[in-house]
Amino acid sequence: MKCLNQLYEGKAKKVFCTDDPEVYLVRYKDDATAGNGAKKGTIRGKGAINNLVTNHLMKMLETKGIPTHFIEQLSDRETLVKKVEIIPLEVIVRNVAAGSLAKRLGMEEGTKLSHTVLEYCYKDDALGDPMVNEYHIAALGAATPDELQQIADYSFKINEILTEYLKEVNIELIDFKLEFGRDSNGKVILADEISPDTCRFWDTRTHAHLDKDLFRRDLGGEEEAYQEVKKRILGE
Amino acid sequence: MKCLNQLYEGKAKKVFCTDDPEVYLVRYKDDATAGNGAKKGTIRGKGAINNLVTNHLMKMLETKGIPTHFIEQLSDRETLVKKVEIIPLEVIVRNVAAGSLAKRLGMEEGTKLSHTVLEYCYKDDALGDPMVNEYHIAALGAATPDELQQIADYSFKINEILTEYLKEVNIELIDFKLEFGRDSNGKVILADEISPDTCRFWDTRTHAHLDKDLFRRDLGGEEEAYQEVKKRILGE
Repeated sequence: MKCLNQLYEGKAKKVFCTDDPEVYLVRYKDDATAGNGAKKGTIRGKGAINNLVTNHLMKMLETKGIPTHFIEQLSDRETLVKKVEIIPLEVIVRNVAAGSLAKRLGMEEGTKLSHTVLEYCYKDDALGDPMVNEYHIAALGAATPDELQQIADYSFKINEILTEYLKEVNIELIDFKLEFGRDSNGKVILADEISPDTCRFWDTRTHAHLDKDLFRRDLGGEEEAYQEVKKRILGE
Repeated sequence: MKCLNQLYEGKAKKVFCTDDPEVYLVRYKDDATAGNGAKKGTIRGKGAINNLVTNHLMKMLETKGIPTHFIEQLSDRETLVKKVEIIPLEVIVRNVAAGSLAKRLGMEEGTKLSHTVLEYCYKDDALGDPMVNEYHIAALGAATPDELQQIADYSFKINEILTEYLKEVNIELIDFKLEFGRDSNGKVILADEISPDTCRFWDTRTHAHLDKDLFRRDLGGEEEAYQEVKKRILGE
């Protein structure tokens, strides 16, 4: 498999095309950003951990009926994925009030939400990824109503599966961000990553952060926390 | 009808209880605010205009099947309304990109939206009336799913009726804010006001602002514009 042109460099990953027009190669970086790029840094080992954790969880989700872009792990940092057209929405699933939701709605961080909350943000760095609802999404043409329904259905199902799965390794799934894409048949499938970069993981007993909040909030210990998440999820 | 205790003083209205426990009295003020109270001023004659315009439009909406809180106009500034428990949501209906939507989504003000956009803001001054979606509303317990569906249905219908009605007097309905309440039977009915304070009205031909944006944006001419709206809508 020859690496051809780099198609895209994001904050935490690079994407390359391959010899197969239906296949992309993703390479995970150690770069960490927060606040829409306002804070920049490095979390040593993060790229490999996020790659391994994402692939492990995507393979597990596939067995439970969630279609994902995962094809094959090539190395610690590199994975082949299905080519998709990314739907320009960040889908945020929240079980417990934390971060921006706690602030915006005046809830104490850690408050269990009486209903699971789904939020959509329109992926546009220049606009700061503004929160949007189903009507904005229709007006922007970001997704069709059918696609959005499919995205919501998958997101709730992924939340159920991941919450159960992580509970077994003493991780509480506070909230997480998903991205979906359209495959070459126009089918909606899960893309991007599922990692301590994109999820809030709290230790079930101590409520210690096991995620990027340690970096975001200058709490320290992020390298150890990412290693701990990998150890718990991969069972090593 | 004796005015008893003042129950509430808002930015543009005072509400009093009356001898009838099912009836409130609303008194409209000339006070104007913008930016969640950051800018304060007066628009001479506004209170009377908003009272007369609101009552005229609510009576018209009642004839088209929209239940409202309107009972009887007592004077230029005073109206009797049904007692309701206000549902703590500002419902914003948008036909054309303007104001915060244009800014947040990077659209030029005046761009016709391909789909009508509905937005909900949670009424909480201390939080700055944050935008919320159906999932936040469920988690906050602000309205039940049935109430929210009823609110959305009424809002779209009110938009259709008002857009048609105002077109006849050369006013384009860009966007507007509604509030709903629960009456003593728990039924959702339209409350609050429909006025140049709560709607963006543009002259159909010149696109001149005929609303509070003149005050908000320090453009001037707000008194004349409010008079003009009253003249067109009341047909005087």
